[in-house]
Amino acid sequence: MGSAVLGTGGGGDPYLGKLAATHWIDRHGPLQLVTIDELPDETLVVFPFGIGSPVPFLERLTITDELVCAFKAMSRYLGRPIGAVMSAEIGGVNSVVPLALGGRLGLPVIDGDCMGRAFPEVQLVTLTLFGHQAAPLAIADEHGNVVVIDSIDNNWAERLARPVAVEMGAIAGGVAYPVTVRDLKEAAVLGSVSFAERIGAAIRQAHRLHGDPIAAVTTVTKGFLLFTGRIVDVQRRTEQGWARGETRIAGADDFSGREMTVRFQNEHLVAIEHGQVVVSVPDLIAILDTERGEPITTEHLRYGFRVSVVGIPSDPKWRTPAGINLAGPRHFRYDIDFVPVEARFARVAAPGAAA
Amino acid sequence: MGSAVLGTGGGGDPYLGKLAATHWIDRHGPLQLVTIDELPDETLVVFPFGIGSPVPFLERLTITDELVCAFKAMSRYLGRPIGAVMSAEIGGVNSVVPLALGGRLGLPVIDGDCMGRAFPEVQLVTLTLFGHQAAPLAIADEHGNVVVIDSIDNNWAERLARPVAVEMGAIAGGVAYPVTVRDLKEAAVLGSVSFAERIGAAIRQAHRLHGDPIAAVTTVTKGFLLFTGRIVDVQRRTEQGWARGETRIAGADDFSGREMTVRFQNEHLVAIEHGQVVVSVPDLIAILDTERGEPITTEHLRYGFRVSVVGIPSDPKWRTPAGINLAGPRHFRYDIDFVPVEARFARVAAPGAAA
Repeated sequence: MGSAVLGTGGGGDPYLGKLAATHWIDRHGPLQLVTIDELPDETLVVFPFGIGSPVPFLERLTITDELVCAFKAMSRYLGRPIGAVMSAEIGGVNSVVPLALGGRLGLPVIDGDCMGRAFPEVQLVTLTLFGHQAAPLAIADEHGNVVVIDSIDNNWAERLARPVAVEMGAIAGGVAYPVTVRDLKEAAVLGSVSFAERIGAAIRQAHRLHGDPIAAVTTVTKGFLLFTGRIVDVQRRTEQGWARGETRIAGADDFSGREMTVRFQNEHLVAIEHGQVVVSVPDLIAILDTERGEPITTEHLRYGFRVSVVGIPSDPKWRTPAGINLAGPRHFRYDIDFVPVEARFARVAAPGAAA
Repeated sequence: MGSAVLGTGGGGDPYLGKLAATHWIDRHGPLQLVTIDELPDETLVVFPFGIGSPVPFLERLTITDELVCAFKAMSRYLGRPIGAVMSAEIGGVNSVVPLALGGRLGLPVIDGDCMGRAFPEVQLVTLTLFGHQAAPLAIADEHGNVVVIDSIDNNWAERLARPVAVEMGAIAGGVAYPVTVRDLKEAAVLGSVSFAERIGAAIRQAHRLHGDPIAAVTTVTKGFLLFTGRIVDVQRRTEQGWARGETRIAGADDFSGREMTVRFQNEHLVAIEHGQVVVSVPDLIAILDTERGEPITTEHLRYGFRVSVVGIPSDPKWRTPAGINLAGPRHFRYDIDFVPVEARFARVAAPGAAA
């Protein structure tokens, strides 16, 4: 659940992610979630992922063999043992894929990821800011075929991996971004798995204590309530493999008479009021069920839902000039400067201040 | 030229192969053509190839960088240095591709191949008879991208390599079939490069001495003149990427009043007279220019050409039950038993014997 908050509308159904995680834990026993300081600097780390068409959940559960096969080919190609795995993105279902591989091979899973959120494109990871490439990457299918792609850049990695995955069938398992623990100490978003756990725990606890789950989320994430209201329109279209669209929300309570539009490309990109972008990538925009505080992914948003929009500061790495250049509003074709969410909304929190 | 005789109608224009070979020799200096006994048994050997759409000749010449890149990825994946290269097929242009890689890297090129001829499908190599797989194979493009395919069988190798090659562009260079010198001593057709040289030299010498170039070819190959005449029809069609068709030849001289049909799938498969197959795969069927003795590939066969059809015994490995099962007439959907060319034609050579 916490991962889905950080998934900012993308990353797949958190219920499926939960089922997958409990399946793997049941099957492989307790996982070794470690902080990066527990591992030697030279330890080699890879990032497991699923690639392919969306498929029924049960098929996703079977990719452990594929992940193991890809992992072994990667280790063979690198000529070195791989000592740990980590999630590339903390948002959504992909954040639990490393649990399958870590569980099966008894490898530690590092508490962290390389986005601190979810993003719709493979190169939008903090590793890119530090010059690390997705390649070599290895992908394997259910038959035992494995392909190692050592491309010159991430664009080619995507171009070459996609037709291989299509030929392999519905879904393939892979590993990418081989880097050392030393690299990750500067290049990763550390602690994000336990951060997601704290977010999920805060939501559960608010339920139990009949408290305010939205306030629980903003407190634990140092985020801001941007808007509360009722969904009046959701538009979706599939373009170049992305789910693109927007959600319009009519204000309620303190936001009565106002309207907010949240646009997405798999993940939420911008929140707009009065034609002005008020929060944008790389900061996080989560749409939560107002009653329950549970995150709602874009495919589940429906007319009439009572929702709250929360803005969460992104990792400081994304707020550098290089980070904004890579994953800021202009990358997604919004010709505006990035303004940190707290710069616009922190003062709203002060009693009597105008928006 | 000798390679094109063994190419049995396929393998590409021998003139282009000659240009490519001289280009590489000019550029990299004398090549090390070695007999297999000159190398230690543990030496690892790979088989270079070009893959992709047919392209202008000049582009073929540029694949040396791609071959080097694929070679290095293969060595890295195998975790062992590769000590020599060899041609997978002696027939046609592909037989000179190893010269590019051997020349550039200063690696010995082993005198031999794995067909002793050309065949239209990747698995039709003597290595298959001894349980060796094409995978892992590596292919690289002009940009420097390289992909290692470690498939479970040769069918999957083809399925996964093809879309990668398409994505890479017009043509890619690759290496496959990593095996040791020890393996090749039992599994390869050894000496076929110098065999091709002897065939070419015999044709050239017959020209110089105004002798009979067809007799020169049958002598050096221990082959048989099957037919002499004039082409009266050539039919070609492209099916599933293969050039399929047949050539009809009306007899002349000793063969006057008779007709022979030679059917091909890239390479010649069967020679037919009176509705009966008289020579078939795996034995070799070459169509030569009667005057000059030069081999004519199927794409160059034209109405009115004066040609001679020569049958050449295949390597003994192809004549075992396993060899006939892999590459004999039934593999190509001719429901007949294989009969060695000499069993039908040797007695014709005796004066007065009836065909």
